[in-house]
Amino acid sequence: MTIRYPNGQAFVPPQKKLTTDIKKLTYSNRGMTLEEDINASNQYYLVQGLAVIHKKPTPVQIVSVDYPKRSAAVIKEAYFKQQSTTDYNGVYRGKYVDFEAKETQNKTSFPLHNFHEHQINHMKAVYKQNGICFILLRFSITDEVFFLEAQHLFSYWDEQSKGGRKSIPKKYIEERGYPISISLNPRIDYLKVIDCIYFNL
Amino acid sequence: MTIRYPNGQAFVPPQKKLTTDIKKLTYSNRGMTLEEDINASNQYYLVQGLAVIHKKPTPVQIVSVDYPKRSAAVIKEAYFKQQSTTDYNGVYRGKYVDFEAKETQNKTSFPLHNFHEHQINHMKAVYKQNGICFILLRFSITDEVFFLEAQHLFSYWDEQSKGGRKSIPKKYIEERGYPISISLNPRIDYLKVIDCIYFNL
Repeated sequence: MTIRYPNGQAFVPPQKKLTTDIKKLTYSNRGMTLEEDINASNQYYLVQGLAVIHKKPTPVQIVSVDYPKRSAAVIKEAYFKQQSTTDYNGVYRGKYVDFEAKETQNKTSFPLHNFHEHQINHMKAVYKQNGICFILLRFSITDEVFFLEAQHLFSYWDEQSKGGRKSIPKKYIEERGYPISISLNPRIDYLKVIDCIYFNL
Repeated sequence: MTIRYPNGQAFVPPQKKLTTDIKKLTYSNRGMTLEEDINASNQYYLVQGLAVIHKKPTPVQIVSVDYPKRSAAVIKEAYFKQQSTTDYNGVYRGKYVDFEAKETQNKTSFPLHNFHEHQINHMKAVYKQNGICFILLRFSITDEVFFLEAQHLFSYWDEQSKGGRKSIPKKYIEERGYPISISLNPRIDYLKVIDCIYFNL
Protein backbone atom coordinates (compact mmCIF):
# COMPACT_ATOMS: atom_id res chain seq x y z
CA MET A 1 0.00 0.00 0.00
CA THR A 2 1.33 3.40 -0.89
CA ILE A 3 1.19 5.86 1.97
CA ARG A 4 0.31 9.35 0.86
CA TYR A 5 0.88 12.75 2.41
CA PRO A 6 -2.03 15.19 2.78
CA ASN A 7 -0.89 16.77 -0.50
CA GLY A 8 -1.27 13.45 -2.29
CA GLN A 9 2.43 12.78 -2.77
CA ALA A 10 3.52 9.21 -2.18
CA PHE A 11 5.64 8.68 0.91
CA VAL A 12 9.18 7.37 0.37
CA PRO A 13 10.61 6.00 3.65
CA PRO A 14 13.62 7.98 4.86
CA GLN A 15 16.98 6.23 5.31
CA LYS A 16 17.58 7.49 8.83
CA LYS A 17 15.48 8.62 11.78
CA LEU A 18 14.04 12.04 11.24
CA THR A 19 14.47 14.74 13.84
CA THR A 20 13.81 17.70 11.65
CA ASP A 21 11.02 20.03 10.69
CA ILE A 22 8.11 18.42 8.89
CA LYS A 23 8.37 20.73 5.91
CA LYS A 24 11.44 18.80 4.85
CA LEU A 25 9.35 15.65 4.92
CA THR A 26 6.13 16.61 3.26
CA TYR A 27 7.65 18.24 0.22
CA SER A 28 10.08 16.86 -2.26
CA ASN A 29 12.97 19.14 -3.11
CA ARG A 30 10.99 20.55 -5.97
CA GLY A 31 7.80 20.98 -3.89
CA MET A 32 9.82 22.63 -1.17
CA THR A 33 11.07 25.11 -3.71
CA LEU A 34 7.60 26.12 -4.83
CA GLU A 35 6.41 26.42 -1.23
CA GLU A 36 9.54 28.31 -0.22
CA ASP A 37 9.21 30.63 -3.19
CA ILE A 38 5.62 31.45 -2.24
CA ASN A 39 6.42 31.87 1.44
CA ALA A 40 9.30 34.19 0.57
CA SER A 41 7.02 36.18 -1.73
CA ASN A 42 4.38 36.44 1.00
CA GLN A 43 7.02 37.60 3.45
CA TYR A 44 8.14 40.25 0.96
CA TYR A 45 4.55 41.42 0.47
CA LEU A 46 4.06 41.58 4.24
CA VAL A 47 7.25 43.53 4.98
CA GLN A 48 6.54 45.94 2.12
CA GLY A 49 3.00 46.46 3.41
CA LEU A 50 1.54 45.24 0.10
CA ALA A 51 -0.58 42.30 1.27
CA VAL A 52 -1.09 40.01 4.25
CA ILE A 53 -1.11 36.43 3.01
CA HIS A 54 -0.07 33.39 5.03
CA LYS A 55 0.21 29.66 4.63
CA LYS A 56 -2.06 27.86 7.06
CA PRO A 57 -0.46 25.47 9.56
CA THR A 58 -0.57 21.77 8.66
CA PRO A 59 -3.53 20.32 10.56
CA VAL A 60 -2.65 17.59 13.02
CA GLN A 61 -4.91 15.23 14.95
CA ILE A 62 -3.46 14.97 18.42
CA VAL A 63 -4.04 11.71 20.27
CA SER A 64 -1.77 11.87 23.30
CA VAL A 65 0.02 14.66 25.16
CA ASP A 66 2.53 14.43 28.00
CA TYR A 67 2.99 17.14 30.59
CA PRO A 68 6.46 16.80 32.07
CA LYS A 69 6.88 18.89 35.22
CA ARG A 70 8.58 22.24 34.72
CA SER A 71 8.57 22.05 30.95
CA ALA A 72 6.27 22.50 28.00
CA ALA A 73 3.59 20.01 26.99
CA VAL A 74 4.92 17.34 24.62
CA ILE A 75 2.71 15.82 21.96
CA LYS A 76 3.51 12.08 22.01
CA GLU A 77 1.11 10.76 19.39
CA ALA A 78 -0.47 12.62 16.53
CA TYR A 79 -1.38 12.14 12.87
CA PHE A 80 -1.46 14.34 9.82
CA LYS A 81 -4.93 15.43 8.80
CA GLN A 82 -6.00 16.73 5.44
CA GLN A 83 -6.49 20.48 5.19
CA SER A 84 -10.20 21.18 4.73
CA THR A 85 -9.40 24.38 2.84
CA THR A 86 -6.62 25.60 0.58
CA ASP A 87 -3.17 26.27 1.97
CA TYR A 88 -2.92 30.03 1.44
CA ASN A 89 -5.22 32.92 2.20
CA GLY A 90 -5.16 36.55 3.19
CA VAL A 91 -6.01 40.11 2.24
CA TYR A 92 -4.97 42.41 -0.60
CA ARG A 93 -6.52 45.87 -1.06
CA GLY A 94 -9.42 44.81 1.16
CA LYS A 95 -10.21 41.80 -1.02
CA TYR A 96 -10.03 38.22 0.15
CA VAL A 97 -7.34 36.16 -1.59
CA ASP A 98 -7.32 32.34 -1.52
CA PHE A 99 -5.17 29.91 -3.45
CA GLU A 100 -3.55 26.53 -3.65
CA ALA A 101 -0.11 25.82 -5.14
CA LYS A 102 0.73 22.55 -6.88
CA GLU A 103 3.35 21.21 -9.18
CA THR A 104 3.77 18.36 -11.58
CA GLN A 105 6.55 16.61 -13.43
CA ASN A 106 4.22 16.12 -16.38
CA LYS A 107 5.08 18.06 -19.50
CA THR A 108 1.83 18.39 -21.41
CA SER A 109 -0.91 18.51 -18.79
CA PHE A 110 -1.65 19.11 -15.11
CA PRO A 111 -3.19 16.04 -13.39
CA LEU A 112 -6.34 16.73 -11.40
CA HIS A 113 -5.41 14.17 -8.73
CA ASN A 114 -3.27 16.94 -7.22
CA PHE A 115 -6.50 18.39 -5.87
CA HIS A 116 -9.03 17.02 -3.42
CA GLU A 117 -12.79 17.24 -3.42
CA HIS A 118 -12.92 19.34 -0.22
CA GLN A 119 -10.40 21.83 -1.64
CA ILE A 120 -12.51 22.25 -4.75
CA ASN A 121 -15.65 22.69 -2.63
CA HIS A 122 -13.85 25.28 -0.55
CA MET A 123 -12.70 27.17 -3.64
CA LYS A 124 -16.21 27.09 -5.10
CA ALA A 125 -17.60 28.57 -1.87
CA VAL A 126 -14.94 31.29 -1.92
CA TYR A 127 -15.69 32.04 -5.57
CA LYS A 128 -19.39 32.45 -4.75
CA GLN A 129 -18.42 34.95 -2.05
CA ASN A 130 -16.52 36.96 -4.69
CA GLY A 131 -13.17 36.14 -3.19
CA ILE A 132 -10.11 36.16 -5.44
CA CYS A 133 -9.53 32.46 -5.91
CA PHE A 134 -6.88 30.80 -8.06
CA ILE A 135 -4.24 28.11 -8.31
CA LEU A 136 -0.52 28.43 -8.89
CA LEU A 137 0.67 25.59 -11.10
CA ARG A 138 4.30 24.73 -11.62
CA PHE A 139 5.62 22.50 -14.37
CA SER A 140 8.81 21.50 -12.63
CA ILE A 141 10.66 20.04 -15.66
CA THR A 142 10.52 23.37 -17.47
CA ASP A 143 10.28 25.45 -14.27
CA GLU A 144 7.23 27.33 -15.52
CA VAL A 145 4.66 28.80 -13.12
CA PHE A 146 1.12 29.71 -14.15
CA PHE A 147 -1.65 31.61 -12.40
CA LEU A 148 -5.01 30.03 -13.28
CA GLU A 149 -8.32 31.37 -11.99
CA ALA A 150 -10.22 28.75 -10.00
CA GLN A 151 -13.25 28.66 -12.30
CA HIS A 152 -11.13 27.00 -14.99
CA LEU A 153 -10.20 24.28 -12.53
CA PHE A 154 -13.87 23.83 -11.61
CA SER A 155 -14.94 23.15 -15.17
CA TYR A 156 -12.28 20.46 -15.66
CA TRP A 157 -13.02 18.99 -12.24
CA ASP A 158 -16.76 18.77 -12.90
CA GLU A 159 -16.19 17.28 -16.35
CA GLN A 160 -13.91 14.64 -14.84
CA SER A 161 -16.70 13.29 -12.63
CA LYS A 162 -18.80 12.87 -15.78
CA GLY A 163 -16.10 10.77 -17.37
CA GLY A 164 -14.04 13.65 -18.75
CA ARG A 165 -10.26 13.84 -18.85
CA LYS A 166 -8.24 13.54 -15.66
CA SER A 167 -5.94 16.48 -16.31
CA ILE A 168 -5.88 20.06 -17.58
CA PRO A 169 -4.00 20.34 -20.89
CA LYS A 170 -0.97 22.61 -20.68
CA LYS A 171 -2.14 24.29 -23.87
CA TYR A 172 -5.35 25.32 -22.06
CA ILE A 173 -3.37 26.63 -19.08
CA GLU A 174 -1.16 28.65 -21.44
CA GLU A 175 -4.22 30.11 -23.16
CA ARG A 176 -6.40 30.89 -20.13
CA GLY A 177 -3.78 31.26 -17.40
CA TYR A 178 -1.07 33.87 -16.80
CA PRO A 179 2.60 32.92 -16.82
CA ILE A 180 4.61 34.23 -13.87
CA SER A 181 8.33 34.56 -14.40
CA ILE A 182 10.48 33.78 -11.38
CA SER A 183 12.29 36.86 -10.15
CA LEU A 184 14.45 37.75 -7.20
CA ASN A 185 12.08 39.61 -4.91
CA PRO A 186 9.27 38.73 -4.80
CA ARG A 187 10.16 35.40 -6.33
CA ILE A 188 6.64 34.66 -7.60
CA ASP A 189 4.88 37.98 -8.07
CA TYR A 190 1.29 36.78 -8.22
CA LEU A 191 -0.06 40.13 -6.98
CA LYS A 192 0.88 41.58 -10.38
CA VAL A 193 -1.57 39.16 -12.02
CA ILE A 194 -4.25 40.02 -9.44
CA ASP A 195 -3.71 43.73 -10.18
CA CYS A 196 -4.24 43.04 -13.84
CA ILE A 197 -7.31 40.79 -13.58
CA TYR A 198 -9.21 42.24 -10.61
CA PHE A 199 -8.10 45.86 -10.27
CA ASN A 200 -7.42 46.81 -13.91
CA LEU A 201 -4.03 48.20 -12.90
CA MET B 1 6.50 27.79 36.86
CA THR B 2 3.09 28.05 35.30
CA ILE B 3 2.87 26.34 31.91
CA ARG B 4 0.74 28.26 29.48
CA TYR B 5 -1.11 27.24 26.35
CA PRO B 6 -0.67 29.21 23.12
CA ASN B 7 -3.81 31.13 24.04
CA GLY B 8 -2.24 32.26 27.30
CA GLN B 9 -4.38 30.10 29.58
CA ALA B 10 -2.58 28.42 32.45
CA PHE B 11 -2.24 24.67 32.15
CA VAL B 12 -3.90 22.55 34.86
CA PRO B 13 -2.50 18.99 34.80
CA PRO B 14 -5.13 16.39 33.90
CA GLN B 15 -5.99 13.63 36.35
CA LYS B 16 -5.67 10.79 33.88
CA LYS B 17 -3.80 10.10 30.66
CA LEU B 18 -5.28 11.98 27.78
CA THR B 19 -6.23 10.21 24.60
CA THR B 20 -8.60 12.74 23.19
CA ASP B 21 -8.68 15.63 20.80
CA ILE B 22 -6.57 18.61 21.75
CA LYS B 23 -9.50 20.99 21.73
CA LYS B 24 -10.59 19.47 24.99
CA LEU B 25 -7.18 20.29 26.42
CA THR B 26 -6.45 23.75 25.22
CA TYR B 27 -9.72 25.35 26.23
CA SER B 28 -11.42 25.49 29.57
CA ASN B 29 -15.10 24.61 29.53
CA ARG B 30 -15.96 28.24 29.13
CA GLY B 31 -13.36 28.79 26.38
CA MET B 32 -14.56 25.71 24.61
CA THR B 33 -18.03 27.17 24.59
CA LEU B 34 -16.96 30.40 22.90
CA GLU B 35 -14.88 28.53 20.35
CA GLU B 36 -17.66 26.00 19.76
CA ASP B 37 -20.22 28.77 19.39
CA ILE B 38 -18.07 30.51 16.78
CA ASN B 39 -17.28 27.28 14.93
CA ALA B 40 -20.98 26.40 14.84
CA SER B 41 -21.80 29.89 13.56
CA ASN B 42 -19.13 29.59 10.85
CA GLN B 43 -20.51 26.20 9.87
CA TYR B 44 -23.99 27.73 9.63
CA TYR B 45 -22.69 30.58 7.46
CA LEU B 46 -20.88 28.09 5.22
CA VAL B 47 -23.85 25.76 4.73
CA GLN B 48 -26.16 28.71 4.09
CA GLY B 49 -23.72 30.12 1.54
CA LEU B 50 -23.41 33.35 3.51
CA ALA B 51 -19.67 33.42 4.22
CA VAL B 52 -16.59 31.19 4.21
CA ILE B 53 -14.79 31.64 7.51
CA HIS B 54 -12.63 29.01 9.20
CA LYS B 55 -10.56 28.59 12.31
CA LYS B 56 -6.92 27.99 11.46
CA PRO B 57 -5.34 24.74 12.68
CA THR B 58 -3.25 24.96 15.85
CA PRO B 59 0.37 25.25 14.71
CA VAL B 60 2.61 22.45 15.87
CA GLN B 61 6.40 22.13 15.71
CA ILE B 62 7.11 18.55 14.74
CA VAL B 63 10.38 17.06 16.00
CA SER B 64 10.11 13.36 15.31
CA VAL B 65 7.95 11.19 13.04
CA ASP B 66 7.72 7.41 12.84
CA TYR B 67 6.78 5.54 9.68
CA PRO B 68 5.43 2.14 10.65
CA LYS B 69 5.14 -0.21 7.69
CA ARG B 70 1.67 -0.46 6.16
CA SER B 71 0.22 2.37 8.21
CA ALA B 72 0.13 6.14 8.37
CA ALA B 73 3.01 8.26 9.62
CA VAL B 74 2.90 8.81 13.39
CA ILE B 75 4.15 12.03 14.94
CA LYS B 76 6.07 10.94 18.06
CA GLU B 77 7.35 14.26 19.36
CA ALA B 78 5.92 17.69 18.73
CA TYR B 79 5.27 20.95 20.55
CA PHE B 80 2.59 23.61 20.44
CA LYS B 81 3.64 26.78 18.68
CA GLN B 82 2.08 30.19 18.97
CA GLN B 83 -0.15 31.21 16.08
CA SER B 84 1.55 34.07 14.22
CA THR B 85 -1.82 35.42 13.10
CA THR B 86 -5.33 35.49 14.53
CA ASP B 87 -7.35 32.29 14.78
CA TYR B 88 -10.17 33.07 12.34
CA ASN B 89 -10.27 34.41 8.81
CA GLY B 90 -12.23 34.14 5.62
CA VAL B 91 -14.39 35.91 3.08
CA TYR B 92 -17.75 37.68 3.23
CA ARG B 93 -19.20 39.55 0.22
CA GLY B 94 -15.73 39.60 -1.34
CA LYS B 95 -14.20 41.30 1.69
CA TYR B 96 -11.51 39.80 3.85
CA VAL B 97 -12.62 39.08 7.42
CA ASP B 98 -10.15 38.46 10.24
CA PHE B 99 -10.74 38.16 13.96
CA GLU B 100 -9.69 36.80 17.29
CA ALA B 101 -12.03 35.58 20.04
CA LYS B 102 -11.18 35.87 23.71
CA GLU B 103 -12.96 35.70 27.01
CA THR B 104 -12.40 36.83 30.56
CA GLN B 105 -13.80 36.15 33.97
CA ASN B 106 -13.27 39.80 34.85
CA LYS B 107 -16.38 41.86 35.38
CA THR B 108 -15.35 45.44 34.73
CA SER B 109 -12.58 45.26 32.12
CA PHE B 110 -10.94 43.06 29.48
CA PRO B 111 -7.25 42.36 30.27
CA LEU B 112 -4.86 43.00 27.38
CA HIS B 113 -2.66 40.03 28.34
CA ASN B 114 -5.16 37.92 26.40
CA PHE B 115 -3.47 39.20 23.26
CA HIS B 116 0.06 38.80 21.97
CA GLU B 117 2.30 41.28 20.20
CA HIS B 118 2.37 39.26 16.96
CA GLN B 119 -1.43 39.05 16.88
CA ILE B 120 -1.69 42.80 17.25
CA ASN B 121 0.91 43.31 14.51
CA HIS B 122 -1.02 40.94 12.26
CA MET B 123 -4.29 42.79 12.91
CA LYS B 124 -2.61 46.14 12.25
CA ALA B 125 -1.32 44.83 8.91
CA VAL B 126 -4.81 43.53 8.00
CA TYR B 127 -6.35 46.87 9.00
CA LYS B 128 -3.92 48.71 6.69
CA GLN B 129 -5.02 46.41 3.85
CA ASN B 130 -8.64 47.45 4.48
CA GLY B 131 -9.59 44.04 5.78
CA ILE B 132 -12.50 43.76 8.20
CA CYS B 133 -10.68 43.19 11.46
CA PHE B 134 -12.19 42.86 14.92
CA ILE B 135 -12.23 40.96 18.18
CA LEU B 136 -15.05 39.03 19.80
CA LEU B 137 -14.91 39.50 23.57
CA ARG B 138 -16.87 37.43 26.02
CA PHE B 139 -17.43 38.31 29.65
CA SER B 140 -18.06 34.80 30.87
CA ILE B 141 -19.56 35.65 34.29
CA THR B 142 -22.39 37.57 32.67
CA ASP B 143 -22.24 35.64 29.38
CA GLU B 144 -22.07 38.81 27.31
CA VAL B 145 -20.36 38.89 23.89
CA PHE B 146 -19.14 42.09 22.23
CA PHE B 147 -17.86 42.84 18.74
CA LEU B 148 -15.09 45.44 18.94
CA GLU B 149 -13.31 46.81 15.88
CA ALA B 150 -9.57 46.18 16.02
CA GLN B 151 -8.57 49.86 15.98
CA HIS B 152 -9.98 50.25 19.50
CA LEU B 153 -7.76 47.42 20.66
CA PHE B 154 -4.75 49.05 18.97
CA SER B 155 -5.16 52.31 20.85
CA TYR B 156 -5.31 50.57 24.23
CA TRP B 157 -2.43 48.28 23.26
CA ASP B 158 -0.21 51.16 22.20
CA GLU B 159 -1.06 53.15 25.32
CA GLN B 160 -0.16 50.18 27.50
CA SER B 161 3.42 50.15 26.20
CA LYS B 162 3.68 53.81 27.23
CA GLY B 163 2.65 52.95 30.77
CA GLY B 164 -1.10 53.06 30.16
CA ARG B 165 -3.65 50.71 31.67
CA LYS B 166 -3.40 46.95 31.12
CA SER B 167 -7.03 46.38 30.23
CA ILE B 168 -9.92 47.80 28.23
CA PRO B 169 -12.70 49.09 30.52
CA LYS B 170 -15.99 47.30 29.99
CA LYS B 171 -17.69 50.69 29.86
CA TYR B 172 -15.57 51.56 26.80
CA ILE B 173 -16.40 48.23 25.15
CA GLU B 174 -20.10 48.86 25.77
CA GLU B 175 -19.83 52.35 24.26
CA ARG B 176 -17.68 51.59 21.20
CA GLY B 177 -18.42 47.90 20.64
CA TYR B 178 -21.55 46.08 19.54
CA PRO B 179 -23.29 43.60 21.82
CA ILE B 180 -24.16 40.26 20.19
CA SER B 181 -26.95 38.31 21.78
CA ILE B 182 -26.53 34.54 21.74
CA SER B 183 -29.15 32.90 19.57
CA LEU B 184 -29.84 29.41 18.31
CA ASN B 185 -28.59 29.50 14.74
CA PRO B 186 -26.17 31.10 14.15
CA ARG B 187 -25.24 31.19 17.81
CA ILE B 188 -23.06 34.31 17.53
CA ASP B 189 -24.29 36.29 14.54
CA TYR B 190 -21.30 38.55 13.99
CA LEU B 191 -22.10 38.98 10.26
CA LYS B 192 -25.06 41.10 11.31
CA VAL B 193 -22.64 43.56 12.92
CA ILE B 194 -20.41 43.50 9.82
CA ASP B 195 -23.46 44.25 7.66
CA CYS B 196 -24.24 47.24 9.82
CA ILE B 197 -20.72 48.70 10.07
CA TYR B 198 -19.20 47.91 6.66
CA PHE B 199 -22.10 47.46 4.27
CA ASN B 200 -24.68 49.89 5.69
CA LEU B 201 -27.31 47.15 5.57
